[in-house]
Amino acid sequence: MADTLIGAIDIGGTKIAVGIVTAQGQVLAHQSFSTQPEQGPQASVQRIAQALITLTNNQSANLSGIGIGATGPVNPFTGRFGAVEFLTGWQDYDIIAALTAACGVPAALENDADAYALGEWRWGAGRGASPFIVVTVGTGIGVSLITAGQVYRGVDGAHPEIGHHIIDPSGPPCTCGAHGCWESLASGPAMEDWAARQSPSLPRRTGAELCAAALTGEPSALAAVQRTARYLGLGIANLVTLYAPQVLALSGGIMRSSELFLPVILNTVQATCAYVPKEKTRILVLESDALAGLRGAAQVWLSRSDEPKIE
Amino acid sequence: MADTLIGAIDIGGTKIAVGIVTAQGQVLAHQSFSTQPEQGPQASVQRIAQALITLTNNQSANLSGIGIGATGPVNPFTGRFGAVEFLTGWQDYDIIAALTAACGVPAALENDADAYALGEWRWGAGRGASPFIVVTVGTGIGVSLITAGQVYRGVDGAHPEIGHHIIDPSGPPCTCGAHGCWESLASGPAMEDWAARQSPSLPRRTGAELCAAALTGEPSALAAVQRTARYLGLGIANLVTLYAPQVLALSGGIMRSSELFLPVILNTVQATCAYVPKEKTRILVLESDALAGLRGAAQVWLSRSDEPKIE
Repeated sequence: MADTLIGAIDIGGTKIAVGIVTAQGQVLAHQSFSTQPEQGPQASVQRIAQALITLTNNQSANLSGIGIGATGPVNPFTGRFGAVEFLTGWQDYDIIAALTAACGVPAALENDADAYALGEWRWGAGRGASPFIVVTVGTGIGVSLITAGQVYRGVDGAHPEIGHHIIDPSGPPCTCGAHGCWESLASGPAMEDWAARQSPSLPRRTGAELCAAALTGEPSALAAVQRTARYLGLGIANLVTLYAPQVLALSGGIMRSSELFLPVILNTVQATCAYVPKEKTRILVLESDALAGLRGAAQVWLSRSDEPKIE
Repeated sequence: MADTLIGAIDIGGTKIAVGIVTAQGQVLAHQSFSTQPEQGPQASVQRIAQALITLTNNQSANLSGIGIGATGPVNPFTGRFGAVEFLTGWQDYDIIAALTAACGVPAALENDADAYALGEWRWGAGRGASPFIVVTVGTGIGVSLITAGQVYRGVDGAHPEIGHHIIDPSGPPCTCGAHGCWESLASGPAMEDWAARQSPSLPRRTGAELCAAALTGEPSALAAVQRTARYLGLGIANLVTLYAPQVLALSGGIMRSSELFLPVILNTVQATCAYVPKEKTRILVLESDALAGLRGAAQVWLSRSDEPKIE
């Protein structure tokens, strides 16, 4: 595998990153450009293919495959995009077929959160752990579950929506149809909404502003943070009970202020989860890494070749 | 595999059943005897070995292996019993080593609920489904998760405790350390406790009595059933969101009155779970089958030989 090179593509709503990654997770070269979704997916594929040609020009080996991590709901098996808010006009576009045709090498696709988790499992904080869970707390709560190095698959390859499991039915309604799903109680917007409802006369504050104010001890911000931490703790405790993970890694905007949340999370797990070996679950906060998206995309390709076929 | 015969052992707190099962799930012969835990596990192993010799006497092939389903926490990897309430004196006893020595063939062990789920996955209502979930609602809520024909394993092979995930933090305390875990809200005793608290002047009623009274329309019993059905629905909806199962099968004492609970369960899943393909999840009630425990034990042996090793 020493000469194996992988084309890694990280497709976001505003930016597309393209890189050349070794089978050891080293990013040899990379570049990025703005997504320009209004020009349609075919234009982006042309730019990706051109970038891959440029980046491989100086390399000693050809690409063995292409791994793609893409924002929003994507179907890893058909290669097609779902209804992605930031990528109007990309719905139902088969990115695997298009990139394979344009580059002459096979490609594999995952949601960018799963790609990131696969990369962290292979080369990062979750190295070799099984089960490995990444929880991303930001505008929503995204959860990736990796078992034995593969993305957990539901019926027909479906992705679970762990961030939408119900943890308090007295909570607010969510577009998932439930009241009090985890995301409705513990995401960034959930914290902002709750703080705004408590202080309707004050200007609405962002999650980052609330965290900053809480660190100064400001009572209303502190109350919002404490409520969010409580619900984050209940949800993380549930993941420990539900999946008995070896490593559970926290990520996302809210976790930049992890000192406000992590103690409550750890205390909640400690006080509950009595019937699983919680002492074997390592809970940690992922460090930000600009190249993690590309390494994750590369691992999408590497892990796909090991994955049992869905019949 | 036509001549493969499996020794199947179903160890309960009151009864041990022993059978000879084909690789096609046919129970060729079986017998059972009372457990007599006070005589210790070694006496039971002798009786099991004797029963296997008797039962195989008329068979055309020898046993290729022994599968065991046993009540209570057991360690499938060490073969040892945990602290099993009904089997005093069995703790730390290595049933795999003992049976292998007594019978001269290798053996494999699972908790009886997982064994039952494996049998239903191979030959029953969950035939070939992945993921396949069995929820047993009785004195507790036991959940078995089978993915690709194997018991889901957490860290170091740990068993998750899905029945103890929190669904309403305003609920009662549980020995798991949480308030409002699923079992504390929706098991048989949870229903009985709640009904007794609502009508402290009446004699305490069992789950079966409450279900029978609810079927006649008696208001206080109906209220207890409706509350239980609501929480069963929330928990089942969570399992659909958390695991995206292909088949979710309900079992256990409470489900003998499934007509009281199933409509609410199905409605709850329908009203929530918007981001998983819930229409692909088949939810059903398992029919009672006296030989299901033995078939499950046989499948413990068959599936173990296919299972990836835990390193």
